[in-house]
Amino acid sequence: MSEQTTAEKVSAAQRAALQLASRSDADRAGALRAIADAIDDAQEEILDANDTDVERAEELLEAGEYSQVLVDRLELTPTKLQSIVDMVHSVADQRDPLGRTLAARRLDEGLTLSKRSVPLGVVGSIFESRPDALVQIASLCLRSGNAVILKGGSEASKTNRVLFEHIREASAEMPDGWVQLIEARADVDELLGMDDKIDLVMPRGSSAFVRYIQDNTSIPVLGHAEGICHVYVDAESDLSMAVDIAYDAKVQYPAVCNAVETLLVHEAVAAEFLPVIAERYEDAGVEIRGDERTRDIIDAETATAEDWKTEYGDLVVSIRVVDSLASAVEHITTHGSKHTESIVTDSDDRAQRFMRSLDSSSVMHNASTRFSDGYRYGLGAEVGISTGKIHARGPVGLDGLTTYQFSLEGDGHLVDTYAGADAKPFLHEELEPESE
Amino acid sequence: MSEQTTAEKVSAAQRAALQLASRSDADRAGALRAIADAIDDAQEEILDANDTDVERAEELLEAGEYSQVLVDRLELTPTKLQSIVDMVHSVADQRDPLGRTLAARRLDEGLTLSKRSVPLGVVGSIFESRPDALVQIASLCLRSGNAVILKGGSEASKTNRVLFEHIREASAEMPDGWVQLIEARADVDELLGMDDKIDLVMPRGSSAFVRYIQDNTSIPVLGHAEGICHVYVDAESDLSMAVDIAYDAKVQYPAVCNAVETLLVHEAVAAEFLPVIAERYEDAGVEIRGDERTRDIIDAETATAEDWKTEYGDLVVSIRVVDSLASAVEHITTHGSKHTESIVTDSDDRAQRFMRSLDSSSVMHNASTRFSDGYRYGLGAEVGISTGKIHARGPVGLDGLTTYQFSLEGDGHLVDTYAGADAKPFLHEELEPESE
Repeated sequence: MSEQTTAEKVSAAQRAALQLASRSDADRAGALRAIADAIDDAQEEILDANDTDVERAEELLEAGEYSQVLVDRLELTPTKLQSIVDMVHSVADQRDPLGRTLAARRLDEGLTLSKRSVPLGVVGSIFESRPDALVQIASLCLRSGNAVILKGGSEASKTNRVLFEHIREASAEMPDGWVQLIEARADVDELLGMDDKIDLVMPRGSSAFVRYIQDNTSIPVLGHAEGICHVYVDAESDLSMAVDIAYDAKVQYPAVCNAVETLLVHEAVAAEFLPVIAERYEDAGVEIRGDERTRDIIDAETATAEDWKTEYGDLVVSIRVVDSLASAVEHITTHGSKHTESIVTDSDDRAQRFMRSLDSSSVMHNASTRFSDGYRYGLGAEVGISTGKIHARGPVGLDGLTTYQFSLEGDGHLVDTYAGADAKPFLHEELEPESE
Repeated sequence: MSEQTTAEKVSAAQRAALQLASRSDADRAGALRAIADAIDDAQEEILDANDTDVERAEELLEAGEYSQVLVDRLELTPTKLQSIVDMVHSVADQRDPLGRTLAARRLDEGLTLSKRSVPLGVVGSIFESRPDALVQIASLCLRSGNAVILKGGSEASKTNRVLFEHIREASAEMPDGWVQLIEARADVDELLGMDDKIDLVMPRGSSAFVRYIQDNTSIPVLGHAEGICHVYVDAESDLSMAVDIAYDAKVQYPAVCNAVETLLVHEAVAAEFLPVIAERYEDAGVEIRGDERTRDIIDAETATAEDWKTEYGDLVVSIRVVDSLASAVEHITTHGSKHTESIVTDSDDRAQRFMRSLDSSSVMHNASTRFSDGYRYGLGAEVGISTGKIHARGPVGLDGLTTYQFSLEGDGHLVDTYAGADAKPFLHEELEPESE
C-alpha cells in the first residue's frame, strides 16, 4: 500500500466516521466477529512478529534501557492471543451503544425533543507496550461507531503492524479508513494540533507521557497521569480481611495503575494489623516505607513527603498511621490522584462517610482496588481509565465513546409563539425513554 | 469584607465544593428559594446599580465603543428582574441531579458496582453583559452541588456585585465560599492556569473570547465559539411553513447564537420560495447575501466564501441554492459550527437522512433553530450551549454540571480470585437502576 501522510490518514478517518455513524448494529458487530476470526487464523504470523519485537526488547533489557515489566507486557503467547480473540467477541456481544433514546420530552403538542446516543467521531489513541491494547481500543471504537487513529509504542511496532493489517482487512465492509495506524513520534505532535478534526485523545502510558499530551493539545484528553490508589484500614474492621485486601491490591499485579500505593491505618488497629501485613509483604518481597508511627511498630524505611505522591508501579508500598477517618480522607484529598480508594470497615455508616467524602473516580468498601478495571466492571473492555471529571470517568468502555445529539421534531413550530406578552407556555412533559 | 486574592477565592471554593457535595437536596433547594426572595426584596437596589452601569454603557455607545445590542442586554427592568426570580424558583423545582444511581451491576455474589451522579467540583464561568447570566449560572451550580467562580463583564460590574452579594448573603447556610466573584481580566488568566483546582470552565461571549479561553488553558472548556446555524428548505416542503421558520429563526432575536445565519434552498422550490421570504425579510430590515443562483431569482448582495462561515448576530442572512439534500449536508459539514440545523420537509424519511447525517449538537425537523435553548428544552435554565462532543452538548443544564462516581461494595473480595488458571467467572448481572 502506498504510504499516506498523517493529515491524509486523519482526513480519511473523518470521512469514514460520518459514514460509520449510520452503519447498523449488526454490521458493526459482524465486522468485529470477522476481526476476531482473522486474528485467530493469523496466530502464527502474529506470534512471529511478536518474537522479533521481544528479541529486540530483550537486547535493550540487557543494555539496561528497558525493564522486565515492559518485556513481559510486550510478549504475546497463544493463551494471551486467545484472550484477545475472546475480548473482541465480548465487545461484539455488548448492547449497541448507539441510537439509544436517553431522554425524551414533549415541549408542546407536536413538538418533541429527544436525546439520542451518537458516536464521538474520530478518536486518537496513543499507547505503550501491550499489543492487546491496540485490538481492544480498535474494537471498542468500531462497536461505538468511531473512527480511530492508533499510535502504539515503537517496541511493539512489528506486532502492531500485523494486528493492524488483519483488523483493516477483516473489516473491509466498514467505511474505508475507519482505522488508521501512525508510527512516528513526530506524527503524534502533528495529531495533537488537529483540534478541528479529532474529537478525543486517549493516551495510555507513563505519567510524564500523559502530562505531555495534556499540556500540548486543545483536543479533549481522557486518561490518567497517575494512579495513586489508597486502602484505608478503619478502626472497626475485620483485620484478616484488611490484610488480604492490602496484599491483593499491592501484590496481585503491582505494575498497573489500580494497584495500591499507600496504606492508611487507623491508630486503634495499627499495633495489631501492621505486623501481620508486614510479614505477608515481606514474603512477597514488598519494600515498606512508613511514617514515624508505623516505624514505631514495624521495621520500615522512612517515608518522605515524596512517597505520599509517588506511584511506585512496583513492589513498594508506603504506610501511614492516622488518628481518624477524617485524617485518612484529608490525606487522600491532599496526595491522591482521584483514581481508586478503598475502605476496609465493618461499619456501613463509616464506609458511606469515606466514600461520599472523596471525589475519586472509584470508591470501594471491603474490596481490592484492583477491581477498578473495565473488564471486571462488566464494560466488556476499556479504552483506558480516566481520573478527570469531564465526560467519562474511571474505566472507559463503549458508553464513554459516545455522546448525544438533541433532535427536535416539530410541525412548523416558531419560537415567537412562546415569547413576549402573550407567550404560550411550554408543556415540558417527560416521555418514557427507550428502556435500556 | 476584606479583599481576597484569586488564589484564596479558588481555594475557598475548592473546600466548599467538597462540603457542598454532601448537602441534602432540601438544603440546596431551600438556599435557592432564599436567593430568589432576596433578589425579589432588593429590586430597587439592583435596578439602581444597573442604572449606573447602563448610563456608563450609553456614554460608551455615544462614543462609538459600544453597540445598542449590548446596552439592551445589560439593562434590567422590573419585568426582567421578575423573570430572574422565576428562573431561580424553576431551578429549585428541578429534580435533584445528585445521588442518582445511573447504573448498577452485580459483579459477583456480595460484590455490587453502582454508578452514582456526583457534582463536578469547582466550575469557572466567564460571561459578558447580561447580569441575568450571573444569577442563572450560580443557581444551576448550587442546585447541582458545585462551587462556582463567576467573572462577569466590566460593563455590568455594579449590577453583578449587588446580585453577587445578595446571593452570597441569602445562601449563608451553604458552605462558606461556594460562590466567588472575580472582577479583573488578569484574574481570568490566573484562573486559567489552575488546572489542578478548577474542574470545568464555561465561557460565554464573543467567538474570539471563547477561542482565547480554549487556547489558553488545560482545564476542560465547554461552550461554543460560533453559532452558525442553518435552515434547509427541502424539495418536498410546505413553503408557507418554510417561510415562517426561516423568518422566526432569523428575526425573532438575531443577536443570539441559535439564530439562523444561512438558508439552504433546494433548487426545485427556489423560484417559488425565495421571492416570498425575501419580501418578509425586507419588511424586517434583513440584508440578504446570496449565491449566483439565488441572485438569479431575487435581488441580493453577492455572498462570498467568507459569508458561509460568518455568524452575523444581526439582521443579515446568507442564502444558497443547492441541488440536493446531500449538497445541503455537505455545505453544513464544511461550513457549520455543529450548533443547530433544521430541515423543513414533508418527508419523514428525508428528515431522518438529514438529521442522522449531521453531527451537530441539535438537529431539527420543521421547527425554528431558536428552540435550541435550555429553558425551551425544559432544562430549567442553561449555563451555556456546547458545540463540543465531550461531556455535555447543546444547551447545558443541571445534568451537564454533574459527573458520576463508581462505587463498589464488597465483602473482602480479592482480584486474585478472578485471575489465573482457576479464575472464578464474574456474574456481571445488570441490576435495575433507580428510576429517574
